[in-house]
Amino acid sequence: GGGKLIPLNGVMGKITAEELDQSIGGKGIVHHTQPSSVSITQVCETGEVYQLDEIKKISNIAHKHNLNMHMDGARFANALVSLDVSPAEMTWKSGIDVLSFGATKNGCLAAEAIIFFKKELVGDIAFLMKRSGHLLSKMRFVSAQLDAYVTNDVWLRNAKHANKMGKKLSDGLSKHNDIEISYPTEANEVFAKFPREKIEHLNSEGYKMNEEELDGKSVRLVAAWNTKDSDVDELLNTIKAN
Amino acid sequence: GGGKLIPLNGVMGKITAEELDQSIGGKGIVHHTQPSSVSITQVCETGEVYQLDEIKKISNIAHKHNLNMHMDGARFANALVSLDVSPAEMTWKSGIDVLSFGATKNGCLAAEAIIFFKKELVGDIAFLMKRSGHLLSKMRFVSAQLDAYVTNDVWLRNAKHANKMGKKLSDGLSKHNDIEISYPTEANEVFAKFPREKIEHLNSEGYKMNEEELDGKSVRLVAAWNTKDSDVDELLNTIKAN
Amino acid sequence: GGGKLIPLNGVMGKITAEELDQSIGGKGIVHHTQPSSVSITQVCETGEVYQLDEIKKISNIAHKHNLNMHMDGARFANALVSLDVSPAEMTWKSGIDVLSFGATKNGCLAAEAIIFFKKELVGDIAFLMKRSGHLLSKMRFVSAQLDAYVTNDVWLRNAKHANKMGKKLSDGLSKHNDIEISYPTEANEVFAKFPREKIEHLNSEGYKMNEEELDGKSVRLVAAWNTKDSDVDELLNTIKAN
Amino acid sequence: GGGKLIPLNGVMGKITAEELDQSIGGKGIVHHTQPSSVSITQVCETGEVYQLDEIKKISNIAHKHNLNMHMDGARFANALVSLDVSPAEMTWKSGIDVLSFGATKNGCLAAEAIIFFKKELVGDIAFLMKRSGHLLSKMRFVSAQLDAYVTNDVWLRNAKHANKMGKKLSDGLSKHNDIEISYPTEANEVFAKFPREKIEHLNSEGYKMNEEELDGKSVRLVAAWNTKDSDVDELLNTIKAN
Repeated sequence: GGGKLIPLNGVMGKITAEELDQSIGGKGIVHHTQPSSVSITQVCETGEVYQLDEIKKISNIAHKHNLNMHMDGARFANALVSLDVSPAEMTWKSGIDVLSFGATKNGCLAAEAIIFFKKELVGDIAFLMKRSGHLLSKMRFVSAQLDAYVTNDVWLRNAKHANKMGKKLSDGLSKHNDIEISYPTEANEVFAKFPREKIEHLNSEGYKMNEEELDGKSVRLVAAWNTKDSDVDELLNTIKAN
Repeated sequence: GGGKLIPLNGVMGKITAEELDQSIGGKGIVHHTQPSSVSITQVCETGEVYQLDEIKKISNIAHKHNLNMHMDGARFANALVSLDVSPAEMTWKSGIDVLSFGATKNGCLAAEAIIFFKKELVGDIAFLMKRSGHLLSKMRFVSAQLDAYVTNDVWLRNAKHANKMGKKLSDGLSKHNDIEISYPTEANEVFAKFPREKIEHLNSEGYKMNEEELDGKSVRLVAAWNTKDSDVDELLNTIKAN
Repeated sequence: GGGKLIPLNGVMGKITAEELDQSIGGKGIVHHTQPSSVSITQVCETGEVYQLDEIKKISNIAHKHNLNMHMDGARFANALVSLDVSPAEMTWKSGIDVLSFGATKNGCLAAEAIIFFKKELVGDIAFLMKRSGHLLSKMRFVSAQLDAYVTNDVWLRNAKHANKMGKKLSDGLSKHNDIEISYPTEANEVFAKFPREKIEHLNSEGYKMNEEELDGKSVRLVAAWNTKDSDVDELLNTIKAN
Repeated sequence: GGGKLIPLNGVMGKITAEELDQSIGGKGIVHHTQPSSVSITQVCETGEVYQLDEIKKISNIAHKHNLNMHMDGARFANALVSLDVSPAEMTWKSGIDVLSFGATKNGCLAAEAIIFFKKELVGDIAFLMKRSGHLLSKMRFVSAQLDAYVTNDVWLRNAKHANKMGKKLSDGLSKHNDIEISYPTEANEVFAKFPREKIEHLNSEGYKMNEEELDGKSVRLVAAWNTKDSDVDELLNTIKAN
């Protein structure tokens, strides 16, 4: 224990290279928390996707200050197909040093991988995993999923479908004058401000809607690899019927 | 961090109530590590199974000193069918306060549960799980396995089969004069001392045998829910052929 | 490890009850950091002193949310004589539950005490101190200082003198049109914005002035129990001579 | 948190190179606690002093396994004058990499230093001290003691006197047939087995004697830099009077 998170304000949920640059300080001074790493979440918490040039600018600032650059890729595949770039382009070619490669939100069961693009950063990770209880018994069966996941484009097809369903949902919602899309829908997450009566109507129809997820104002709707067209239609029709 | 494990010598891999009683001390003295809990592993690390009266005696000592009694049940089902008792008898009726209910070694994927038999011990466990990264995304899919696991005796049938295969293996090995069963085979684990030439022969035939698992002298062989009769036969035949 | 600090913006270095009230949330929700305690620093980091009614309002909010109220009293005595109230009034009578009673900045050597105004909060503090290496060998000799410290008003006289020297320094500085006092001087700390040439002049005369302590703009000057009138005069004269 | 202490049995309170060599294992295997450092206490917990050749043998084993060698020198000066060697001989010339240089038990107030004999081991120690609350405010006043401590042989004279008083006490006790010196008295600590009636007599005379300090059988008596000849005489006379 003992690491400290320094949150940045960011713009639309994404941090900027400029704000990052101004926030790094105190290096080598014992009275200050020591900066160690910069972490961005791709897709980020508002459903926005970092563009390649944004990642590069942020990585450059991190490396200028001798910090390591981490990408939290819980929705890595969704970002990848949204940008239509290669995994290499979105990671090490843009300055990412370490990637949390998430698969659990895109069809796997409890399967994630930590990928180091610089061998010298691996350090004691295997022992840290063991000590924190993250080296599971029979882990090979969990890991085997990743093999299938990246074979025959399963992961990309899953993500494309999820993003498509997200887009369909976002488009459908934006036709309502009293519903406001909070952030541009760039992947499979849709944030929208609903009038209270619509939320109550949906909840009375069996949905579970609330505005507490992000900024206290928006409802968060997430399409997944297994969301069906009819699921989206049904939700949109229920809204229309109100 | 900061907990300290106090190992006991035990007998055949199982701790005894007497040794436990003598080892607890320093309570309330600031210069001493404070005793908090007693933990036993069922099936234990030598493949032995704690008998109900042994569990009760140990629990009594723990409770006499106001310590909590924990059972590490990574092989809970194997112990249960070995003793042929009910889950209640092997746990709270014998003084167990908290159980780690393992399913991963008996057919599930990354599925374990922590069961508190005393509500007042639950404390902040949900937050501790979250903080240590053990509250997984989509955890409901992992947890769903446990529902199937305890339905229609799947878990007991799996464990019975594994124990049966362990017994078959142990019986087969004990027919060799130069192989010594290190501990009585009470569940699905078999520990045996092999002559070096037999180990080398097996390794040359594609097995991976070593004596480093436990006491530096015994080979550890584990039968599982999916071990086939023919798997055991094949191993025994390979040994005979040497 | 694992505690997380949630910083508030505050006004002039002091947090407000209103901002505090709005910032507490997520209690009982496993995905959120759990609020536990509110801590204020008296004298605070800008040299301002919390007034009794401010402490009471903040404590009320903390207690409304079932949080404990802590006062970091590294400069406790300086605040006390500044407010001219009793220790009881500035602590438990204003809702403080736990006090870090500092003496090191007011004449003692490595001597601090943690004072619990509610016995039920003491918990395992003695063991936590031991574990973190804060139970010193021969600690009775360190602690003995506190006995002398609070006898015959030593602590109050020391603090009064330090505050008086701080006031004298602040008054002297404020006579210069190009020096701006950043915060009202309420105890023994003076924060002031100096023109660059004055800083360089002082540094050339053997002082060590920088603007990095607080907000990157102000120099921080601290008078202590052993600061002499002549020390302040000398500094002020050096500034005038520039 | 997370470090794990592996205790060794030792002989008369001192670990041996042979036992150490046999106890180090599992390096690089993720399922095993990773060996990192060997620590010896000089003077050790039974009042015995490690001889130079013992330190060298232990250090050699530590370094053979790529472990760092630490000396807990809470009673460093007492050991030094007991062996009549130089600080260099008892530390880096005997393979010690890091020394905890204690002064608190020999006349200082809360003053200890960590001395690295290999610069590459310093690492983040300054930040670790800060984070754990061991970078004190006004620490320069605490540290200043060490300057005086090692000047004009103050530390050696203090230690010589303490050891001399320990020897006098040990010699006096050993004249009683019913008192058994538990370990050879090599520095300022005396461990002795007293008959119960003698303990009770001493306690009735205002001493505080118990047998709980070490092995549950011996009383622990410690002479210090400020123990007077008359203090020892008084204790011995009280024992005789029984």
